[in-house]
Amino acid sequence: MMRTRPLKVALLGCGVVGSEVTRIMTTHTDDLTQRIGAPVELVGIAVRRPDRVREGVPAELITTDATALVKRDDVDVVVEVIGGIEPARSLITTAFEHGASVVSANKALLAQDGAALHAAAEQHGVDLYYEAAVAGAIPLVRPLRESLAGDKVNRVLGIVNGTTNFILDKMDSSGAGYSEALDEATALGYAEADPTADVEGFDAAAKAAILAGIAFHTRVRLDDVYREGMTEVTAADFASAKQMGCTIKLLAICERAADGRSVTARVHPAMIPLTHPLASVRGAYNAVFIEADAAGQLMFYGPGAGGSPTASAVLGDIVAVCRNKVAEATGPGESAYTRLPVSTMGEVVTRYHISLDVADKPGVLAQVATVFAEHGVSIDTVRQQGKDGEASLVVVTHRAADAALSATVDALRKLDTVRGVASIMRVEGE
Amino acid sequence: MMRTRPLKVALLGCGVVGSEVTRIMTTHTDDLTQRIGAPVELVGIAVRRPDRVREGVPAELITTDATALVKRDDVDVVVEVIGGIEPARSLITTAFEHGASVVSANKALLAQDGAALHAAAEQHGVDLYYEAAVAGAIPLVRPLRESLAGDKVNRVLGIVNGTTNFILDKMDSSGAGYSEALDEATALGYAEADPTADVEGFDAAAKAAILAGIAFHTRVRLDDVYREGMTEVTAADFASAKQMGCTIKLLAICERAADGRSVTARVHPAMIPLTHPLASVRGAYNAVFIEADAAGQLMFYGPGAGGSPTASAVLGDIVAVCRNKVAEATGPGESAYTRLPVSTMGEVVTRYHISLDVADKPGVLAQVATVFAEHGVSIDTVRQQGKDGEASLVVVTHRAADAALSATVDALRKLDTVRGVASIMRVEGE
Repeated sequence: MMRTRPLKVALLGCGVVGSEVTRIMTTHTDDLTQRIGAPVELVGIAVRRPDRVREGVPAELITTDATALVKRDDVDVVVEVIGGIEPARSLITTAFEHGASVVSANKALLAQDGAALHAAAEQHGVDLYYEAAVAGAIPLVRPLRESLAGDKVNRVLGIVNGTTNFILDKMDSSGAGYSEALDEATALGYAEADPTADVEGFDAAAKAAILAGIAFHTRVRLDDVYREGMTEVTAADFASAKQMGCTIKLLAICERAADGRSVTARVHPAMIPLTHPLASVRGAYNAVFIEADAAGQLMFYGPGAGGSPTASAVLGDIVAVCRNKVAEATGPGESAYTRLPVSTMGEVVTRYHISLDVADKPGVLAQVATVFAEHGVSIDTVRQQGKDGEASLVVVTHRAADAALSATVDALRKLDTVRGVASIMRVEGE
Repeated sequence: MMRTRPLKVALLGCGVVGSEVTRIMTTHTDDLTQRIGAPVELVGIAVRRPDRVREGVPAELITTDATALVKRDDVDVVVEVIGGIEPARSLITTAFEHGASVVSANKALLAQDGAALHAAAEQHGVDLYYEAAVAGAIPLVRPLRESLAGDKVNRVLGIVNGTTNFILDKMDSSGAGYSEALDEATALGYAEADPTADVEGFDAAAKAAILAGIAFHTRVRLDDVYREGMTEVTAADFASAKQMGCTIKLLAICERAADGRSVTARVHPAMIPLTHPLASVRGAYNAVFIEADAAGQLMFYGPGAGGSPTASAVLGDIVAVCRNKVAEATGPGESAYTRLPVSTMGEVVTRYHISLDVADKPGVLAQVATVFAEHGVSIDTVRQQGKDGEASLVVVTHRAADAALSATVDALRKLDTVRGVASIMRVEGE
């Protein structure tokens, strides 16, 4: 029953994830063989620095010639854990041309060139799997494209970046400011020396593009995703959030419009109610909330990054594409048949929490309320606090188009009685 | 590219789940066609009572002859949502013999005869999928057998019965007793007229058997699962739990022994810390916590029952087995190669929370402590409360074998100074 010719796997990259993939493949060979239904063998590991000491990694598998490795016609599966656009893209394409299926953890590449890569995989009759590209070990790609294949997903709302969740959680629990919390994240290894990709939301935006594409069966590119980082979130914002019964999270939000004819994808900090399951996601953990017509509300929670969790997702995909190779079949490819347009941020319908510094004199509230009314934005609650001739006004709106909310804020800034807009934050998850 | 001969699906049963499956299949035909890569058609619905009014169900598809339906050689997929052992088992077996893949939501049947059914499916080269059998719409079967296929699962800890979670949540939040909370669950439709299968843990035990089998790649039958219902949980237990910083949940727990050489599966009420993610699972929701070597801790949360959520899981499986039919392949079958023995409850290592009514006189604590020591059970904390010559003693143990804990309790009952054992509850999730 079991075939005896081993499936051959080539690994591109041997950092924290690649080393762990190597460790599992070389120490759990019997389990993998049973689960695939055929023996599996790691036949080569392409690295840039061959002299680096890599504990547990067989030296005889190391090569610096990644191109030669992916061109080997006996390689069945190429695992790409290099990251970045090039040389990853060329190597994956070459692997397809030589008949190999590919398992990738490369969110940036998938978000940018997913369509072309899927097309190339299909053309060559091989698989492209990438569970590890979104939220580490948390199964999301497979549940979205397989478990929910008979359902209609309307919203994906998630914490998909562990670094920023660690920082925001720290600010929330300790009252620390952004810089202080970032320093702690860096010291503990949760933030990189250059934290830009995380704190400015680029990493989360790539994941949002991938999730939206799969969830809505359409193409969503990185450029389609509205992105706002979380570097300007302050301790005062957390205090405001608490007064609302909320906390602040950096959210990736993919939504189908109410009329079903378009979708949106965005990443920005937002207040969410403390009663929302995402509010209690602590530290560097990730969690994704999915709303579907028939399934209702589902949540998936777990470690969103790290060598071992990411390797777990990579290994799950290796087993799947190896099984497909044994069956001489391929798994589900890109599904983009709905061809729904991606609307801009202005068309997103959401709520705003706005803190204004205003003059403490009669008529200010009336002026402010008029500006909201003129832009068709309905006010939910207003809270006034006076202190020494100055006052603050906290306005929470009802749901309205983001463009109208944004225009309202612009008009407020022009009022003489408004000394400044202290903060603007969207309110989600209600 | 797309094949034109439609895949034919036959449905067995048309209750709440079957009606919803029918509705989705007949109204979302285009989406299903795109996602499968071939047209799909519902060709027959077997019911017992053909005269019952079923809104939106095409009358011309209704038949009372289920056997003739599954014998049709043109049927590609049989969907079984009848429940129970017979006639479901015979119909599924006949479907396999006639070349159809089967999608089932039947936890009782899978827990009892999963091995034989898997063998029959494999023999006939068809699929047996059953995501809907465990925790409704929450993807669990697929993540366990595919996403985590390259990892080693050590524990599955879950709330897999919505009825009992509703009752326990009610008791926790309102201080209600069991009967009162059950009455409310019945009135709201969360509990059936005869709630035995839910409150005595039979439903959860079937799910535990299925989950343990998949998680540990071994066979776990319903008889292997230790089962204790939750009808004896009292308001006093909740008060004790609160003092411990815990709440009480009916848990399904599947564990690999520390030495890796055996597994256990059990269902019983247990205290879990309020800080554990499962503690905040409210109402009739389900959630399952999975611990794996590389992935770490994952949690899956969502509606565990109901027509629509269950239909979502069934439809996901229909799409998957249809895709396999188009590819002329089959998905992963039973994986039971580890052949790990299933240990009895006595070998489970856990903690006890024990409330004793004792005489309020010197030396009682020493007597009680001696009994624990004689059985090799180490005490974590003791709390004494005296009142009018009577006293209560609350003992929380360290981890010990369940057999030793159980023997300790038996010996305590024999002490003259112990007037009664008010409650015994295991403590989990720490």
